[in-house]
Amino acid sequence: MRIVLDAMGGDHAPQVTVHGAVWAARDFGLEVQLVGRPDVIERELEKHDWRGLSLSITPAGQVIEMAERPAAAARARANSSMAVGMQMLRRGETDAFVTVGHTGGGLAAALLYLGRIPGIKRPAVGTLYPTTTENGYCYVIDIGANADCRPEYLYQFALMGSVYVERMIGVKYPRVGILSNGEEEGKGNRLVIDALPLLKRGPFRFIGNVEGKDVPSGIADVVVTDGFSGNVFIKTSEGTARLFIDSIKEGIRRYPLARLGALLMRPALEAAARKLDYREFGGAALLGVDGVVVIGHGRSDAYAVRNAIRRAAQTVEYDVVGAIKRELGLITRNNEQREQRDENNHQ
Amino acid sequence: MRIVLDAMGGDHAPQVTVHGAVWAARDFGLEVQLVGRPDVIERELEKHDWRGLSLSITPAGQVIEMAERPAAAARARANSSMAVGMQMLRRGETDAFVTVGHTGGGLAAALLYLGRIPGIKRPAVGTLYPTTTENGYCYVIDIGANADCRPEYLYQFALMGSVYVERMIGVKYPRVGILSNGEEEGKGNRLVIDALPLLKRGPFRFIGNVEGKDVPSGIADVVVTDGFSGNVFIKTSEGTARLFIDSIKEGIRRYPLARLGALLMRPALEAAARKLDYREFGGAALLGVDGVVVIGHGRSDAYAVRNAIRRAAQTVEYDVVGAIKRELGLITRNNEQREQRDENNHQ
Repeated sequence: MRIVLDAMGGDHAPQVTVHGAVWAARDFGLEVQLVGRPDVIERELEKHDWRGLSLSITPAGQVIEMAERPAAAARARANSSMAVGMQMLRRGETDAFVTVGHTGGGLAAALLYLGRIPGIKRPAVGTLYPTTTENGYCYVIDIGANADCRPEYLYQFALMGSVYVERMIGVKYPRVGILSNGEEEGKGNRLVIDALPLLKRGPFRFIGNVEGKDVPSGIADVVVTDGFSGNVFIKTSEGTARLFIDSIKEGIRRYPLARLGALLMRPALEAAARKLDYREFGGAALLGVDGVVVIGHGRSDAYAVRNAIRRAAQTVEYDVVGAIKRELGLITRNNEQREQRDENNHQ
Repeated sequence: MRIVLDAMGGDHAPQVTVHGAVWAARDFGLEVQLVGRPDVIERELEKHDWRGLSLSITPAGQVIEMAERPAAAARARANSSMAVGMQMLRRGETDAFVTVGHTGGGLAAALLYLGRIPGIKRPAVGTLYPTTTENGYCYVIDIGANADCRPEYLYQFALMGSVYVERMIGVKYPRVGILSNGEEEGKGNRLVIDALPLLKRGPFRFIGNVEGKDVPSGIADVVVTDGFSGNVFIKTSEGTARLFIDSIKEGIRRYPLARLGALLMRPALEAAARKLDYREFGGAALLGVDGVVVIGHGRSDAYAVRNAIRRAAQTVEYDVVGAIKRELGLITRNNEQREQRDENNHQ
């Protein structure tokens, strides 16, 4: 298994990317192909003992910065670490691409160099979100690739999300919900209301509207939403978790005995904090492009990079992209058969 | 000060509504006017010692149920507790209206019986949201009244929210942000991008895009958003807080020493939980209708009802509705003067 890593992307590159690559190569026995400026990567590698590990360097010059218009940058910079990595994936020189850099840049480069899976209208970014259930996760898609969506996009997100959860988490017939402002049917904005009849007809187990408050308790295995609301969902959750942690810290400062209590509670508090820690989720999968692409949080540390590499390897192993293609092929075939039947009936 | 309370609304009415009314009347020296079925209310009142308190009963028969279409129900049921309460406010027989019942029903009844403040296109529901800053609150508007919005609605939400925070929290020149999927200008869905130029010209301190993750740290005093995304924001925050608390409880079960720790940490943990407890927020204000209307959480307990009544009283005391009217009048006058000036220049 070979995973190409954008060594230059993210807030703390190349320190955390190179460190995460070494870590992943050691823990999972993978080959990690680092893409970026060789001198910079080599200097970082020197800080680690990576004897016996499978690490390689592919030169690439430029980086797509946060402030750039991603599509234009991806086109203009064929030599950026993202573009070079995507091209390697395209040519079959690697099995998956991982970055913790610019999400929009990753999406643009993937569209340009890998292209969409035939039949997919819009690729989407999805992430596993923690729940208190046995499976422990719900897959939320889209969390940011498509700020404005049409009902048929949501239909395809549901389909891809369903395949992802079935393959990656092993949930049979995952329950698919649509994020809304009320659980009753009829609640929702225009998009949700228009998407409902489509979703009900889909080849997945659609359970209707779900609310943000019920997602953590595991009301659905897949939550589909437009990339704007999905982004609000993920970031609000991140913000609330931090508010909670800060409030507890403030309480500890104020009540002296609480400090001793915190010491005793440490494993319990750490387990709770870990539950909501994006570093554990292993980044977000870009679904709908023709290849395995994982995009991690820009603020990722080495541990988060390691986990994103692992997630990419799992996505290859469980053949998520192949399964999505087969699912789409099945639908196309069914539709053709139905059309054929309808035609015959009319004759 | 007289506050009318819909005694029949909410998941736990009339127990918690009557109890909350007694509590508020005692703590704040208000007159609470209970609207609903007299026999039911009287039976509840018998459970409390309310000698010396100012409580009255106004008969009303029907209740608007969660499953009903709110606008139709409000029209059809002129004798519902919501309709009767709104009519009392309209006739000046009370100073404010409070319910913990159906939000859509409250909005519909308010529109029907109170009407909009002249010039307001869409009333909106806003709520105070906890932050870790000194003021301790940010006002999020809209959280559910308008699932689909136009840029000019968001402009008016910003204006009303700004007045609300200035009056209720005492923040001078509150910073107004728009909820988006990225802090950089240019990020956002169609609505956000189209609203930006309007918001920049408003008579308030607009600071641009804000993300859900930064709201709890107090990046803005007012956050404007459409009612769909605002609802996702509020409910996701509620769900994440619960996930966090459940994870801590799970940790306490698993690590025996943590139980002792939790005991010592109790005041700190309780302070943190209180910070995120909707019962403390005092319900949501319906801004843009011609009167003070506060709508609390359907799951409110007596303490939450008490706080919603207090919030309504404060909204009257600080004359939020009057201030919004004056602000709108000023804008209208300015616009007229500008038009007059433009006309003169053209002559």
